[in-house]
Amino acid sequence: MGVHPTYAGDRVQVLDTTLRDGAQGASVSFTLKDKIAIALKLDELGVDYIEGGWPYSNPKDYEFFRSIKEYGLRAKVAAFGSTRRKGVRPDKDENLNSIVKADVQAAVIFGKSWTLHVREVLGTTWEENLAMISESVEYLKSHGMEVVYDAEHFFQGYQEDPEMALASIEAAWRAGASVIALADTNGGTPPSEIYRIVQEVKRRFPAMPLGAHMHNDIGCAVANTLMAVAAGARHVQGTINGIGERTGNADLTAVLPTLELKMGFKVLREEPPQIKFGRLREVSRLVYEVLNVQPNPYQPYVGDFAFAHKGGVHADAVMKVPRAYEHIDPELVGNRRVIVVSEMAGGASLALRLSELGISAEKRDPRLKAALEEIKRLEREGYSFDVGPASAELIVLKHLGLYREMFKLKEWRVITGPTSASYAVVKVAIGGIDYVEGAEGVGPVHAVDMALRKALAKAFPDLQRVALRDYKVILPTLVKNTESVVRVTVEFSDGSRVWRTVGVSTNVVEASVKALADGLDYYLQVASLAVAKI
Amino acid sequence: MGVHPTYAGDRVQVLDTTLRDGAQGASVSFTLKDKIAIALKLDELGVDYIEGGWPYSNPKDYEFFRSIKEYGLRAKVAAFGSTRRKGVRPDKDENLNSIVKADVQAAVIFGKSWTLHVREVLGTTWEENLAMISESVEYLKSHGMEVVYDAEHFFQGYQEDPEMALASIEAAWRAGASVIALADTNGGTPPSEIYRIVQEVKRRFPAMPLGAHMHNDIGCAVANTLMAVAAGARHVQGTINGIGERTGNADLTAVLPTLELKMGFKVLREEPPQIKFGRLREVSRLVYEVLNVQPNPYQPYVGDFAFAHKGGVHADAVMKVPRAYEHIDPELVGNRRVIVVSEMAGGASLALRLSELGISAEKRDPRLKAALEEIKRLEREGYSFDVGPASAELIVLKHLGLYREMFKLKEWRVITGPTSASYAVVKVAIGGIDYVEGAEGVGPVHAVDMALRKALAKAFPDLQRVALRDYKVILPTLVKNTESVVRVTVEFSDGSRVWRTVGVSTNVVEASVKALADGLDYYLQVASLAVAKI
Repeated sequence: MGVHPTYAGDRVQVLDTTLRDGAQGASVSFTLKDKIAIALKLDELGVDYIEGGWPYSNPKDYEFFRSIKEYGLRAKVAAFGSTRRKGVRPDKDENLNSIVKADVQAAVIFGKSWTLHVREVLGTTWEENLAMISESVEYLKSHGMEVVYDAEHFFQGYQEDPEMALASIEAAWRAGASVIALADTNGGTPPSEIYRIVQEVKRRFPAMPLGAHMHNDIGCAVANTLMAVAAGARHVQGTINGIGERTGNADLTAVLPTLELKMGFKVLREEPPQIKFGRLREVSRLVYEVLNVQPNPYQPYVGDFAFAHKGGVHADAVMKVPRAYEHIDPELVGNRRVIVVSEMAGGASLALRLSELGISAEKRDPRLKAALEEIKRLEREGYSFDVGPASAELIVLKHLGLYREMFKLKEWRVITGPTSASYAVVKVAIGGIDYVEGAEGVGPVHAVDMALRKALAKAFPDLQRVALRDYKVILPTLVKNTESVVRVTVEFSDGSRVWRTVGVSTNVVEASVKALADGLDYYLQVASLAVAKI
Repeated sequence: MGVHPTYAGDRVQVLDTTLRDGAQGASVSFTLKDKIAIALKLDELGVDYIEGGWPYSNPKDYEFFRSIKEYGLRAKVAAFGSTRRKGVRPDKDENLNSIVKADVQAAVIFGKSWTLHVREVLGTTWEENLAMISESVEYLKSHGMEVVYDAEHFFQGYQEDPEMALASIEAAWRAGASVIALADTNGGTPPSEIYRIVQEVKRRFPAMPLGAHMHNDIGCAVANTLMAVAAGARHVQGTINGIGERTGNADLTAVLPTLELKMGFKVLREEPPQIKFGRLREVSRLVYEVLNVQPNPYQPYVGDFAFAHKGGVHADAVMKVPRAYEHIDPELVGNRRVIVVSEMAGGASLALRLSELGISAEKRDPRLKAALEEIKRLEREGYSFDVGPASAELIVLKHLGLYREMFKLKEWRVITGPTSASYAVVKVAIGGIDYVEGAEGVGPVHAVDMALRKALAKAFPDLQRVALRDYKVILPTLVKNTESVVRVTVEFSDGSRVWRTVGVSTNVVEASVKALADGLDYYLQVASLAVAKI
C-alpha cells in the first residue's frame, strides 16, 4: 500500500459533527428521532466524539442531549457554542451556560483567530478576544467538561497576521483546551497552504494537540484534513457524506478509511478494521435516507459507482487482477464491484452480469450482440440502464431465449383528479387467460399497482414480498416541456435482494407502469431461473 | 489572499479530457453534436489541449476529429491511445496508427509504470515495456505530432519499485514527449504521498516537464492535482464537473480557479481572469445539460449552494462583511450568493429574499413569522422550499397581503392509459367567472398543462412566454411505496428570469399540476408587483 512509515500506528481522534455542522447544510433538517438514529450508528462505527447540537442557537437540541443519555453511548457527546460575548462575565453568558445546561461530557467552542473578524464582526480588541477565549475555556472546564477549541478562520487569520492567530490558540491551550482544532471555516485554503501552516504551528508549539476542521469550498475538505494530519494534527472533524453549509464539510466516509488504510494511522475504537469500515456504506446510506436525499453515486468508497467498471476491456481485466484496477477491495467498506451495462458495454460486461444470475454466456454470442443493439436503441430514446439494470437484464434474457412469459399487462386505464382517489382498471394475460381487475389508489400509479397486483395475486402469491423502495422521475432530454419523455426509475426489494428498473414515455403514469411491471416480472424471472437450475 | 510567493505567475498548462476520460463515466454518453458544443465552449474558456477521443477503442471519434477542424480552435486537439502492443513494430500497430489517422496536433498516449501491470496485465518484460514506450513516442513524433505521455498507475508503480517507474518516464522523455503526466489511475494515493513522490521525481529529473492526471477514488482528485503542481508539475489534466470512471477525475471547475486565484499560478489563455472564470458556471452547466444530469448543488465554486447561506445570523452577517464568510466573490466564477429559505431560516432570510422582489419587510414582522410557520408545516409534509423557492414566495406574498388572485384552478380530471394520448378537462375561475376547457396531451401532465393554458390564454396572453425548463419527481419520505407522497419540482423560464416551484401529493399528476399552477401564478404575481411599483 505504500503506507508512510512515520505515521504507523498513531491514533487520530474523530469528532463527528453531522448533527451540528451537517445540519447547517441547505436542505438538511433532522428530527429528534433522526438524530438519535444517527448518533447510535456513529457510536457503533466507533467515533470518539459526537457533536450533537448547538443548544444556544437551537433550543430543540436539549431534547437530544437529554434523550441520548439513556443509550449509554461509548462515544463522548459534545455540545457546540461560541466563546463568551465581549464584556460579559462567563457565568453570565447565555451561550456558555447553554452548553453547561446541555449536561454533556464535552464542549466544542469556537473563537476568533482572524483580525478582520475580531475588529469588524465582533467590534472588539485583540486583548478582549484573548480574554474571551481563555475565560470561556476555564469556565467550561470548571464545570467538569472537556473542552475542544475550534479556531474559526484560523488559516486566513494566520495568513494575514500569524502572531495574533498563534496568540489566540495559545490562549485556548493554556486555559486547558484538550484539542486545538484549526478551522478553514470558509473552505478556501489550498492543501499546500494547510500543510505549510500546520507544520509551522507544530514547530511553534510542539506539544499542542492539534485538530482539523475543514470545509469544501474549493473541493479540498477531505485532502485538507489529510494534509493537516500529515503535518501533525491528530484529531479530525467532519460529517457523514460531507453534508454541511454551502459545499459541505470534510466527508468522514473518505477521511477515515484513507487515514487508516492508506496512511497507516489508527482511527475509530479498537475493533478489527474489517468490521468498522465494513459499516461505512451503511452509515452513509442511513444519513441519505434520513435526509430523503438521493445518494451520490460517484461518492468515494461508498457510492454506487465507486467500484463501477465500464467498457469491455477494462471490465474484463478487473476480474482477472482486481488489484491492478481497484484501490481497495470494495467489501472492506461495505461496497461492491459493479459492471455497468450501457451503450459502451461490450459482450464481456453483459456476460459478467449474467454470471451473477447463474447464467453462463459466451461474450461473443451473437444473441448478446443483438441484445446490446436493442439496449443502445432504447438508450437513444431516453432509457438509461445504468439506473435500471434489471430492465436491461430482462431484454438480455429475452434474446437468450431464457425469458418465460409469466404475465402480460395488455391494457390499463386510469381516471384521476385533484383528490387522493384515482381509479384504475387493468387487463392481464396469465397462461393464455385474460383477467380484468379494477382498484382504487391514492394516485394513478398506486391505483394501477393495486389493480395489477390484484390480477397477479392468485397465480403468483410470492409477489406480496416485493416492495417498492424508491421512485424517481426526470426528463432525460435536452428540450424540456410537459410534452417531453420522462424517465422513471424504481427500486424494489424482496427483503434480501434489491433491483432497479427503468421506464420511459411521454406519459409519467405509463413510464411508471412500465418500470413497475418490469420490477414484478424481474422477480418472477429470477425465481424461475433459480428453479430451473435445481 | 495569502498567495504563495514562489509560484507567482508560473504558467500551468491545462488539458481537458471531458470528451475522452469523462466519457468513461457511468451514465455518460456524448453525441457528435454534444462533443462539438463542449469543445467550442472549452476553447472559449481557454484550455491548452482538448482531448477529443480514443479512436482505436471508439471509431466514432474520427467523426469528431474530422468535424472539429472546421472550427479552427485555438486549443490543440489531441487524440488518445496506448503505447504499441508488445512484439509489434510501431508502424504496424493499429492503436498508434489510429492516432496518426485522427490527424490532430497532439497525441496523448499511456504506458505502464507499475511492475504488476507489466508482468500480469501485459505479460511482458521491463525491457520490452521501455521499448514500447520510447518507440511509440518516436513514431508519433515522426508523424509531426506533439506527444503527451501519461504514466499510468505511476504512484503505485513508484511505491513498489521506484527505479523501474522512473525508468519508464525517462524513456518517454528521452524519446521526445513534451510532458510526462504522472497518473494516479486508480485514484487511491493520498495527497501527502503525491507531494512526496512528485518532489522526488522533480529532484531526480529537474528538467523533465511534469503533469498530473488524478482520479477521485479517495475524494482527493482536485487536491492531488494541486499538490502535484505545488511539488513542481506545470500541466494538469481533468474534466468539467469531474466526470469520469467510478468516482471521476479531477474537476477542472475547482482546479483552475484555485490554481490562479488561491495559489498565484496562471492558467488558461491570456484573457483577463474575470472573463475566463466568469464563464466557469456556464461551462459546468453545459456539460450537465448535455448529459441530462442534475447539477450537483454542493459543487465547489459553480454549484447552486456554493455561496448559499442558511440560518438568520449568518445570512445577516454575510451581507455586511462578505469577505468574512465567502472565500471569493461569487461573480468571479459566474455564480451568485443565495439566501436559503427553509425551516431553519429566520425572518432575516425571508426579508432578504423579498428584497430581491423589490419588497421591503421588517424581519420581525409577525406576518413573516406566520408565513414561516406555514412553510415549516409544509416541509414536514414533504415540501422542500430549497428546491422550489418560488412556491415559498407565493406563501409569503399571501401572508403579507401582496398576493392578488389572478386565477384559481378549481377542478380538473384526466383520463390516461398506455398510449400517448391523455385527455384533461379543467375548470378555472378568472375574475369571478368559471371557464371550462378540455385538451389532449401526450401524457396526463401535458394534457392538464394544455387545458390550463387554454383557459388562461385570453386573460393572460403573456403566459405563452413561460416555458418549462425541467421537471423532477422524488419520494421524499422514508417509508416508500406507490402510496407514498411524491415531491415534484418544476423549473420555469420566461427567457430572462428562471424560477422553481414545488408540489407534493400522493398523486404524481396532482403534485405536478400544483407545481405547474404555482409556476404560472408566480410569473403573474411578479409581473403584477412590477406594475404596482410603477
